[in-house]
Amino acid sequence: MRTTAIAAFLALTLGASAHASEGKLDYDHQERWQGALDHAQSPIDIVTAQAEQARADEPLGLQLWHTLAPIDKAEDNGHAVQIDTHATEAMIRGRHFSLTQFHFHAESEHTLDGKHYPLEGHFVFKAQDGRLAVIGVMYQVGAANPAVQAVIDDLDAKDGRLPQPSVDVADLMPERLEYYHYLGSLTTPPLTENVEWYVLPNPVTMSKAQMDALLQHYRRNNRNVQPLNGRPVLHYRG
Amino acid sequence: MRTTAIAAFLALTLGASAHASEGKLDYDHQERWQGALDHAQSPIDIVTAQAEQARADEPLGLQLWHTLAPIDKAEDNGHAVQIDTHATEAMIRGRHFSLTQFHFHAESEHTLDGKHYPLEGHFVFKAQDGRLAVIGVMYQVGAANPAVQAVIDDLDAKDGRLPQPSVDVADLMPERLEYYHYLGSLTTPPLTENVEWYVLPNPVTMSKAQMDALLQHYRRNNRNVQPLNGRPVLHYRG
Repeated sequence: MRTTAIAAFLALTLGASAHASEGKLDYDHQERWQGALDHAQSPIDIVTAQAEQARADEPLGLQLWHTLAPIDKAEDNGHAVQIDTHATEAMIRGRHFSLTQFHFHAESEHTLDGKHYPLEGHFVFKAQDGRLAVIGVMYQVGAANPAVQAVIDDLDAKDGRLPQPSVDVADLMPERLEYYHYLGSLTTPPLTENVEWYVLPNPVTMSKAQMDALLQHYRRNNRNVQPLNGRPVLHYRG
Repeated sequence: MRTTAIAAFLALTLGASAHASEGKLDYDHQERWQGALDHAQSPIDIVTAQAEQARADEPLGLQLWHTLAPIDKAEDNGHAVQIDTHATEAMIRGRHFSLTQFHFHAESEHTLDGKHYPLEGHFVFKAQDGRLAVIGVMYQVGAANPAVQAVIDDLDAKDGRLPQPSVDVADLMPERLEYYHYLGSLTTPPLTENVEWYVLPNPVTMSKAQMDALLQHYRRNNRNVQPLNGRPVLHYRG
């Protein structure tokens, strides 16, 4: 199957292969068919003035519950500081997801009208059908953040015992869950394109000492912004 | 970002590249990063006994309205018989989609417990954010189908004027919208993996003459079934 939108992507990205999709297909040599994986990548620059208002004919909000998340593992995995967890649930645009982990990128991977924040958190949710949804949160220096402190304390633990058994992810997110939504990808290999993004424009604060403690792990683990290639970016005011 | 599930896919499909994702990433040479596009393809064989019951903590149904669809174009596009349309709307698991086109594959692309039907229809829906959802319908010979006849009449029109201006897509679907749901791909190049599939197990009939008229265009335009690679298949009884 194909759609006009996909054909347009093809024209952008595949050149000659586009004709194969429009014309006869050789069903006896399917192993020669070419796939495409470069038109819907993340992160992106979000041009806020060009975002479409999300239509209110379906549930739009993000609701989280069981936000006091048990910390299963807190580690620097070699390319990011990551916290594995379970138990936090979310309704994301009307569908049920579970939080599996969150991690940090410096500077932010997404930009808002070209502006980077010093740090971006990615909260990775999974649905029953395997669908991934990631909430991206911007951080800046300001008031200290108790949840960030819990993460830092656990990262610094030397003997394998976590001094902080849980973290309230609500403290890691802004109060108003306004978002920009688009369809994108993982931002590290395999760069898989089956990810719903929810980038929250309202930043959350942490103290300078807390920011420095996280930046001490990574000061540059952000993928460059990728071309939008005509994808809609939807805005929901929360 | 990454998840354990993705790491599992990596182990299956990428071999050595998996280590790149687990270890240090070279952010100064991102152009060398490798993507993956071969773990979540369509069609699949649906093993009905292994499908998970869809959890009822979110809207699950498929509802269609404005099913009398204007026919914008009816053509043999070189690899399938396809009808372009607009105006038919759907709520699919709580989200709003619009029908853009439908087309036919022979034999069916999806199989149910290994069984092919002689024909499968793909109804391609698109959401505001660009999300694609495809409803797959199985056809077999039986009672004549007025909507199939409208399609055939328009395909046979020689002078560019369509004798049938519209088709009721409700007649092309079974009464009970029971489905098997999984995340897959387009089944023709570019094989893009961002497609929600809803395969309806209850077949719809058309007369032998109607089936023959469609098979006269294509008797073999079905992609081979692809490996499931651990993807969940959800069952909803409708």
